[in-house]
Amino acid sequence: MKAALIEVAPRDGFQPIGPFIPTEEKASFIAAAHAAGLRRIEVGSFVNPAAIPQLRDTAEVLRQTAHLDGLDAQVLVPNARGVALALEAGARHLVYVISASEAHNRANVRRDVETSIREYGDVVAGLPPGIRLRLNLATAFDCPFDGRMDQALVLDRLERILAHRPDVEVGLCDTTGRADPEHVFSLAAACLERRGAPTRWVFHGHDTYGLGLANVMAAWRAGIRAFDAAFGGLGGCPFAPGATGNTATEDVVWMFHRMGVETGVDLEALVRLAGRAAALPGASAGGRVRAAMTGGCG
Amino acid sequence: MKAALIEVAPRDGFQPIGPFIPTEEKASFIAAAHAAGLRRIEVGSFVNPAAIPQLRDTAEVLRQTAHLDGLDAQVLVPNARGVALALEAGARHLVYVISASEAHNRANVRRDVETSIREYGDVVAGLPPGIRLRLNLATAFDCPFDGRMDQALVLDRLERILAHRPDVEVGLCDTTGRADPEHVFSLAAACLERRGAPTRWVFHGHDTYGLGLANVMAAWRAGIRAFDAAFGGLGGCPFAPGATGNTATEDVVWMFHRMGVETGVDLEALVRLAGRAAALPGASAGGRVRAAMTGGCG
Repeated sequence: MKAALIEVAPRDGFQPIGPFIPTEEKASFIAAAHAAGLRRIEVGSFVNPAAIPQLRDTAEVLRQTAHLDGLDAQVLVPNARGVALALEAGARHLVYVISASEAHNRANVRRDVETSIREYGDVVAGLPPGIRLRLNLATAFDCPFDGRMDQALVLDRLERILAHRPDVEVGLCDTTGRADPEHVFSLAAACLERRGAPTRWVFHGHDTYGLGLANVMAAWRAGIRAFDAAFGGLGGCPFAPGATGNTATEDVVWMFHRMGVETGVDLEALVRLAGRAAALPGASAGGRVRAAMTGGCG
Repeated sequence: MKAALIEVAPRDGFQPIGPFIPTEEKASFIAAAHAAGLRRIEVGSFVNPAAIPQLRDTAEVLRQTAHLDGLDAQVLVPNARGVALALEAGARHLVYVISASEAHNRANVRRDVETSIREYGDVVAGLPPGIRLRLNLATAFDCPFDGRMDQALVLDRLERILAHRPDVEVGLCDTTGRADPEHVFSLAAACLERRGAPTRWVFHGHDTYGLGLANVMAAWRAGIRAFDAAFGGLGGCPFAPGATGNTATEDVVWMFHRMGVETGVDLEALVRLAGRAAALPGASAGGRVRAAMTGGCG
């Protein structure tokens, strides 16, 4: 059995960090993740630099990591303009984001969901050959404004998105970390039952309430085999000093290895990288395995 | 649907804390847990006070909490001498502990497993009427010395223990926090399939590697309906400053409430209590919900 891990710390983990991380250091983190065996890495995003100044150097990060053997570097794009900028910078793998929730979509990408889906359709139609595409469905379970999402509504929006292109990878994103394992299992199972190949599925979770691994496990039981995670559990929220971000990659790797599931990741190298990430000025780190493995307790 | 929570912070959570917690403060924590809706509380243990000086006042803690309406106060006992001391102090609910692993049993209670099981049989035979008994099977999944436990061996030892008294409650204890969700599901399902009523089952987990809630969820799926947990995620290990202890009660309650499962616990009151526990001098706290709920981020 194998699980695919997609390292998102350089995008989702770095973006809330205030002090600018020098481009060379970002590239060095990505190289270290690559050296630890991670091959799919979300290296940044093409969003308004006024909104997320930390990621304003994604084009340069792409250039500085282009030499890494077998690296599949994906970048987040919120709209058609982001797509154009990403392609101009040489990106070959785009992650387009649409929220399932109307309120979150407006806050996140300043459009209603209808407009986002239509713009996504235009992007799909105009995409040059050879460019890979992923679609992140944010707030697929829970919205910071509207609370728990109605599953029928979410599935309906997914169908309309998939109508534009069925052979896409879809990230089911628990943006708030408030999804519970039964909810994750329910939506993931419904998605896989309705849409198998050529559609592919990824689960993207946060560990804000400690449900990170429980939700990865729920998605795994439902048949999902690819997972976003962030070394060091980076992420957090500027309004909650103790709250943490994405599920820590090292925790996910630990769990899968304990279950005999291969990830291709060198856990010890990853834990060293996670320790370095947790020490970044302004970082809010999470995860448990880092402390457990470096502290010396069995 | 309902889940029963058994609060073990006053025993498992307090025992590694160096600075002595005054008896009145222990009693006040127990009263606060009771006020938050927790009715089953492990209030201490009758072990050698030289080994665990923090819990040397369990007899007095029992006396100071005896007035709490409906409180089911359980105490841990490692041997026949502990049973005698506990009964003398007026305890009505005993938790006898035996390790599934030979190496851990020797380290923990200084006997081989055979001797422990025999002594347990004598205890069962001599127990006064009206005294409730629980049996904790420590290292049911993983041993700090021997690693992963063979499930057939564990089930065999359980059968020999249950032969002395089938109508006992058994705690399946992941002592190290290294059990993975598939392992927890597997053993729990095997136990429930072989032995339903009158035997009852509890899962006791640690969150050292972030698997706390994932393992609670696995036990729940297998049919277990009672769970040990510690407010503030107290526990930890003196050799691992960042490592955490029992799965945090507030995290377990959060998860169950999100799934629509009743616990009878007032989560906000519990989170306040967890904050107070995390601030105890010498405490190593864990859990996520405390920070997420008090920090202000959705």
